[in-house]
Amino acid sequence: MRNLESMGLRLTGNKLEILDQRLLPQEELWRDASDPNVLIECIQGLGVRGAPLIGVSAALSLMLFSRSAKAAEVPALASRLRKARPTAVNLMNAIDRCTKAFAEGGHEALEAEAFRIFDEDVALCEGMARQGSGLIADGDGVLTHCNTGGLATVGKGTALAVIRRAHEEGKKIHVYVDETRPLLQGARLTTWELGRLGIPYTLICDNMAATLMRMGKIQKIFVGADRIAANGDAANKIGTYSVAALAKFHGIPFYVVAPSTTLDPNCPDGAAIPIEERDAAEVHGKGRVGVRAWNPSFDVTPRALITKIVLDDKVI
Amino acid sequence: MRNLESMGLRLTGNKLEILDQRLLPQEELWRDASDPNVLIECIQGLGVRGAPLIGVSAALSLMLFSRSAKAAEVPALASRLRKARPTAVNLMNAIDRCTKAFAEGGHEALEAEAFRIFDEDVALCEGMARQGSGLIADGDGVLTHCNTGGLATVGKGTALAVIRRAHEEGKKIHVYVDETRPLLQGARLTTWELGRLGIPYTLICDNMAATLMRMGKIQKIFVGADRIAANGDAANKIGTYSVAALAKFHGIPFYVVAPSTTLDPNCPDGAAIPIEERDAAEVHGKGRVGVRAWNPSFDVTPRALITKIVLDDKVI
Repeated sequence: MRNLESMGLRLTGNKLEILDQRLLPQEELWRDASDPNVLIECIQGLGVRGAPLIGVSAALSLMLFSRSAKAAEVPALASRLRKARPTAVNLMNAIDRCTKAFAEGGHEALEAEAFRIFDEDVALCEGMARQGSGLIADGDGVLTHCNTGGLATVGKGTALAVIRRAHEEGKKIHVYVDETRPLLQGARLTTWELGRLGIPYTLICDNMAATLMRMGKIQKIFVGADRIAANGDAANKIGTYSVAALAKFHGIPFYVVAPSTTLDPNCPDGAAIPIEERDAAEVHGKGRVGVRAWNPSFDVTPRALITKIVLDDKVI
Repeated sequence: MRNLESMGLRLTGNKLEILDQRLLPQEELWRDASDPNVLIECIQGLGVRGAPLIGVSAALSLMLFSRSAKAAEVPALASRLRKARPTAVNLMNAIDRCTKAFAEGGHEALEAEAFRIFDEDVALCEGMARQGSGLIADGDGVLTHCNTGGLATVGKGTALAVIRRAHEEGKKIHVYVDETRPLLQGARLTTWELGRLGIPYTLICDNMAATLMRMGKIQKIFVGADRIAANGDAANKIGTYSVAALAKFHGIPFYVVAPSTTLDPNCPDGAAIPIEERDAAEVHGKGRVGVRAWNPSFDVTPRALITKIVLDDKVI
């Protein structure tokens, strides 16, 4: 049996573990998610997050389950995993591929497909880094939103992989990290990754990015995507649209970096992408009664605000 | 001796108390700030905040101090109070008026001036509400940033007083409240005030405002100001410029509401306004080592992005 390891996921024999991203950076806790119910709970609670990582972890979970389950039980779990989060298309794609493989070739085919999805994700990250790093120039200030690195994928990341590659190529860059309210993936996860990689960064509140743009500190913006519609509209973490509109206003190039698995040809445009709404308590904090808050987990950036989309095999 | 009371300040005889706004809404703690050192600490720590309230509380503190201090000690305290926070001009104005009164007429003149500043602030709020409420139409969705209500002044507020007046006039409005990172004055203070006033609102993260604008939910934007330069540039809580740029991008009117005491004719433009930078731990949280963050407390919105400035006596 093949074992796997990435920054946020480990497969050892029949044991699937995930690094609980809710506890980072204070605590690095690996949680046993061999039970698919635990994984689903982790996906819904954002212990596991990042569109590519969610897809890969769900595929591996289904594969593990199929090692000992009755064949009839596999499609039912596939259906539950597929619905764990509604916005990212990677999860749907990964589960559809596994389901098809299982229908055609049983457990062995599913096993091969799940490992293939893992390997592909690593290669997709390499591809994006290669395609995108040329967009970053020596001396650039680069703004990013949310976390799109090794914690969001099983490879080096999407937008953050591009930034990392530019740094590794010796370009002197400075990364401005949106904290990314309400769950602070930028403040908690991206600063943690950048710190480990030794890439210079400054953490900011989301509402400070506009002022940095006005000050001329930001030359490029790189973000990820959870789903890209057929017309080029892209859904990503809430706050991305705000950055895109501000980029347009200030004349700064705005790049979306995503694997080609994020493209959804069945989705005509952004209005057709389902946007998950989460518990208002993520915004106003626990223990406050009677406070009304809105908490969409994603927003849609229209194609017109996107300078280029960096995929693993091309820039469009 | 005359006693005073506002939402965030109480003067009873020789006792000056302030409602510690750091603890709201969880706890309503009145802190004895009769000692000027306590008040200065509260101003610097944001226990007392809001440009008008800071000015009034500093004036009252100087007045109280002068009741028992030697005359020679008064200017020294005035100088310390004046520097407690650098951006808001109200504090400088209030202290300058008190210092002048004291120089001309001793403690009695200072006492009269401090009470006058308090009374004027109440009247200024009324004036702004009267000048501005006509800008809000029945059915409007109104976005606001930070806290500009009874907690920021000793009257009904600046921007929030305009919104309150429109509500009291029977207009059906819905207020969208920017949480206002990093210190969450919107989430903690403005929702608390709006809840007490029975005005319908929805709390959002700062990075969600753009999406609401795109959805057509926001017809008007009202914010306060800590200093308005001679050319019309306005400094206000960090995040205000972001809202203003997004408003321009979406074609939504953006109004700054401030008492005429906020105008600083000695300041030619926004670049000349000193912007306080605060502890990075306000952004990244306590206990995180090695995280680099930027924490400007204010930003400057250029005149070109401001639809109108609502003062207490006119709209310009």
